[in-house]
Amino acid sequence: MTRSPPQPDPQPASLHATQAAPSMHMLCRQAPVIPVLVIEDLTHAVPLAEALVAGGLPVLEVTLRTPVALRAISLMARVPGVTIGAGTVLTPKDAQAAQRAGATFAVSPGTTQYVIDCCEDLSLPLLPGALSATEVIQLIDCGFDVMKFFPAVAAGGVAALKSLAGPFPQVHFCPSGGISQSDAQDYLDLKNVVCIGGSWMAPNVLQREERWGEIRQMAHQARQLKNGHHGTATKNRLR
Amino acid sequence: MTRSPPQPDPQPASLHATQAAPSMHMLCRQAPVIPVLVIEDLTHAVPLAEALVAGGLPVLEVTLRTPVALRAISLMARVPGVTIGAGTVLTPKDAQAAQRAGATFAVSPGTTQYVIDCCEDLSLPLLPGALSATEVIQLIDCGFDVMKFFPAVAAGGVAALKSLAGPFPQVHFCPSGGISQSDAQDYLDLKNVVCIGGSWMAPNVLQREERWGEIRQMAHQARQLKNGHHGTATKNRLR
Amino acid sequence: MTRSPPQPDPQPASLHATQAAPSMHMLCRQAPVIPVLVIEDLTHAVPLAEALVAGGLPVLEVTLRTPVALRAISLMARVPGVTIGAGTVLTPKDAQAAQRAGATFAVSPGTTQYVIDCCEDLSLPLLPGALSATEVIQLIDCGFDVMKFFPAVAAGGVAALKSLAGPFPQVHFCPSGGISQSDAQDYLDLKNVVCIGGSWMAPNVLQREERWGEIRQMAHQARQLKNGHHGTATKNRLR
Repeated sequence: MTRSPPQPDPQPASLHATQAAPSMHMLCRQAPVIPVLVIEDLTHAVPLAEALVAGGLPVLEVTLRTPVALRAISLMARVPGVTIGAGTVLTPKDAQAAQRAGATFAVSPGTTQYVIDCCEDLSLPLLPGALSATEVIQLIDCGFDVMKFFPAVAAGGVAALKSLAGPFPQVHFCPSGGISQSDAQDYLDLKNVVCIGGSWMAPNVLQREERWGEIRQMAHQARQLKNGHHGTATKNRLR
Repeated sequence: MTRSPPQPDPQPASLHATQAAPSMHMLCRQAPVIPVLVIEDLTHAVPLAEALVAGGLPVLEVTLRTPVALRAISLMARVPGVTIGAGTVLTPKDAQAAQRAGATFAVSPGTTQYVIDCCEDLSLPLLPGALSATEVIQLIDCGFDVMKFFPAVAAGGVAALKSLAGPFPQVHFCPSGGISQSDAQDYLDLKNVVCIGGSWMAPNVLQREERWGEIRQMAHQARQLKNGHHGTATKNRLR
Repeated sequence: MTRSPPQPDPQPASLHATQAAPSMHMLCRQAPVIPVLVIEDLTHAVPLAEALVAGGLPVLEVTLRTPVALRAISLMARVPGVTIGAGTVLTPKDAQAAQRAGATFAVSPGTTQYVIDCCEDLSLPLLPGALSATEVIQLIDCGFDVMKFFPAVAAGGVAALKSLAGPFPQVHFCPSGGISQSDAQDYLDLKNVVCIGGSWMAPNVLQREERWGEIRQMAHQARQLKNGHHGTATKNRLR
């Protein structure tokens, strides 16, 4: 990724701050957890979305990892009260297809300038992934102040996010990757965590057996988690 | 590293997918472990290679970390049945010298566009290192689907690789750095691990004392490790 | 960050090796620990610096994380025997302001080419942050051989630094982030660690209560740590 600082010097248009960040903050504040979904059977898309929304989790990430993902997004986007994002957006083509299918935001596990530029061109809010401080700075330079931290548990977990709060107090993270109901609160208690991504409430085995009641229950439990710190005012443009 | 997506837009020639990946898959499938070698005494090069090949490990990585490394590659490349790669390839100059010495592939702990471009120009297959999801995506954009994951144990180990299998099911990793005979199987059991890099079977103390029999024994033990998942068909060009 | 290898090919002027590295080595050798300071009250700046210098820690990093940080640097830079660096330098603007305030070096938790270029233009020595091997190589390509490793504990700690010593024996690190008096020696015992960054000897609670004697005591304890390996000769330009 090329970096572009928020400096007075003239910059290429593509590197201007995205306008996406404020709505990304609002999206991330709607619930403590964004379910990260892998949908293998298209007939499961709507009942799954309905169960999660009924359980109190209205913002969903549908990963572009299965052949039916784009069609699932189309169907799920019509469920009342839902906001559907596309996950695993790795290329501009992914971003375009996701938006056409009905996704209103994009999530990437890591981030390239190509995807940033494309999402900006599409006015598609992006939750871009970062891991190292260098990657965080590169995203700050592109105007982001909400980022995915992936893989959360394996890359240092709560300790890593605490450390990043030192030099980057203005950045809010959505950690995901390996988080479960049992350690979710530890992440949400961090002042630089705005919400978390998780898939424990919609495991593929429950989807396959169409046990929507149980998924709704687990969503309801996840909804009870507290993300008390995420209300602090932040600005899109930093420093 | 600059990233280049496999998009319809015109791109600089240097960013096209390398043709190296298919042979890298084949190289990585020859044995569960690629010994990562630091050779300090040139007279040890040939007996070391012979011991490792006799033990069942025919693909060797000779790191460019010692003054004799290039000459060692030259000598070892003539051992029957061996395939010699150069490790710690950090610059185009390293890649050129390694190929001239007889290395048939290159390994880098992390990856810059300079080294990618050079290896492509040389038609030298490259096993490029990545750690973060951003780095993985950048390598996917350059056409790679086999990557080194370094430093494997310190950077999250098995948990990190499991997490990376989520958004990157098509990428196969060769984790290395801190792996030993005792935890090697845990890595090889992962479906996104094609083989591992390790140096436990050729420690410098055994080289110095020319205990080739013991090295052959340890290579034989390493050979018994199972990498059952690495046979899944993959394509060079992804998505 | 764009990378630039020390190759014979012509390169843009901005990517030449910085002249900063040799003095960064000397700075890092003055004491085993560089206190990483967050100053909230300007009246604390001078007594804090005096206490740390009196305790034996003459090189201080004042992070640009508080409104008074630049003015604190101005005041602290006049304390006899002190060397003040600016921490959390994320943009060229930060680097310029820090130097104007009196900082004689800059520290960044991660590194972009923008900051590297600016520090080079300013002849301001930079201790640039890296985490992954790719980031380390990019900094080597820019001429650095002393780097910050952040967040040290969360990103794999001693094991990660040991692994990085394999492919990068010529690079010396200043790990920081989560290190305390109790594990500091483990880091300093590594042959690729030149010094460490830490804030345990100047916690904000002691600053607020103006307990300078205790801070001097803790600085004195930190000074007793041994960094025996840091004297090995290194060159600015590598490979």
